[in-house]
Amino acid sequence: MGRVTERRRVVHIDDGVATERPDTLAGEEPLEIRVGGRAIAVTMRTPGDDFDLVAGFAFTEGLITDPDHLVGLRYCAGADDEGRNTYNVIDLVLSDDTPLPDAGAARNFYTTSSCGVCGKASIDAVKVRSRFDLHDDPVTVTPTMLSALPSKLREAQQVFDRTGGLHAAALFRPDAEVLASREDVGRHNAVDKVIGWALREKRLPLAGTVLMVSGRASFELVQKAYVAGIPVLAAVSAPSTLAVEFADSVGMTLVGFLRGTSMNVYCGADRVVVGAAL
Amino acid sequence: MGRVTERRRVVHIDDGVATERPDTLAGEEPLEIRVGGRAIAVTMRTPGDDFDLVAGFAFTEGLITDPDHLVGLRYCAGADDEGRNTYNVIDLVLSDDTPLPDAGAARNFYTTSSCGVCGKASIDAVKVRSRFDLHDDPVTVTPTMLSALPSKLREAQQVFDRTGGLHAAALFRPDAEVLASREDVGRHNAVDKVIGWALREKRLPLAGTVLMVSGRASFELVQKAYVAGIPVLAAVSAPSTLAVEFADSVGMTLVGFLRGTSMNVYCGADRVVVGAAL
Repeated sequence: MGRVTERRRVVHIDDGVATERPDTLAGEEPLEIRVGGRAIAVTMRTPGDDFDLVAGFAFTEGLITDPDHLVGLRYCAGADDEGRNTYNVIDLVLSDDTPLPDAGAARNFYTTSSCGVCGKASIDAVKVRSRFDLHDDPVTVTPTMLSALPSKLREAQQVFDRTGGLHAAALFRPDAEVLASREDVGRHNAVDKVIGWALREKRLPLAGTVLMVSGRASFELVQKAYVAGIPVLAAVSAPSTLAVEFADSVGMTLVGFLRGTSMNVYCGADRVVVGAAL
Repeated sequence: MGRVTERRRVVHIDDGVATERPDTLAGEEPLEIRVGGRAIAVTMRTPGDDFDLVAGFAFTEGLITDPDHLVGLRYCAGADDEGRNTYNVIDLVLSDDTPLPDAGAARNFYTTSSCGVCGKASIDAVKVRSRFDLHDDPVTVTPTMLSALPSKLREAQQVFDRTGGLHAAALFRPDAEVLASREDVGRHNAVDKVIGWALREKRLPLAGTVLMVSGRASFELVQKAYVAGIPVLAAVSAPSTLAVEFADSVGMTLVGFLRGTSMNVYCGADRVVVGAAL
């Protein structure tokens, strides 16, 4: 997959002096997702781990509600103007007993029939769709374990190191061992790739795991983690109000601003075992 | 609009010692966009400047192709469980001669009828939709002017200062004077808010302006800037391959890694006037 990065000459300017030099860019291309030949969605993504991305997207966005519904993934045999397969169209092959996905499932995810769409309606809509309950997940972590995650995530960011242009997500065991890590120009895609890996490895629900993301924790990332059964989500940067409300309501532990030995626990703090008393 | 931020108690841990303290979070809520009462899209956004957001979204995503099509914006009179208006549903009122928007316009934006969807197809699809040509925009900037933008953008990021959780976009004149700045949890929303402000102020096309964004430059941000007629886009972080290809093909100047006196010019370098020869 040579399209993960691309070399390009750029004009670098420093202190008013311009020089030409090569630069490495993070790849971004459209990916069309189809179900039984019918286009469902197009997402801009970094090529690579595309089957993981599509499997994860299908599950976290509700196109399939059971991992067993997914029986196959294949690249469509399409080609660009020069006759090359673009590898930018993937068809999901679903089992015969799969409920037909609503064409607008992903798009209408947050909508309700009432006029007063609000955060609570969005939270309720997602809750209905998850098969897993996080409240009873007994996993615990320590501040020391959490503090080890950012550098491990960074080590796994091979493309970021070359381009500075990718988000990353990595799944950890409670002893900080990496289970899987993925990169993408889109933060939600990086998470979908990790969850799709787990789905294809038949590891769902992801009970007892910690998901670490390189950016901020939005509502969208919390809902994806929740649908996959992940009890602890940690982010380098800030969460939003709705991300915290949602994580709190489903029993997820949400950690933000995880940098060095410092972090904020926004909810589910009982899973973070500290030496000193609160 | 008290929902831009929210105070919440968090457990702060440093060096293994936990303390409870208040933290300020960036607001995130769903916004449903309707046309003539029909739901078109739902986006997660930070409340505030919602009319700008909806106007910008409608124009940059092709729901309307002419600013004059938009004759009004109004909050839907919906309410949440407690009877309060959520201000999370906005109806676009369009002129009678507006072509009816395709329900899937935004979603199908990048798709083509052929199987081999590729970056070129995406670029072509966007090109068709813009009314403005950037190639002839004679505006020039200097490295000194560009270097002044990040700190001015930061000054305009009032909510980011309190939460660390928001993206920002700001529109500048060539003399580095700020025309408008907006913040949002979504980087694309921040840009839509700025462009929607311009649309509502009847300032489109935004010839002779520079748009600065706080994060990376994705294909999506370049296409939004292009549709609004913005000739120069500058980003704090990295652009993607497709962002550069697209900007280059439409005659946009794209600057990335703009930090201090250092920057990379990825295309359209003729608009950046440097003292030293290349």
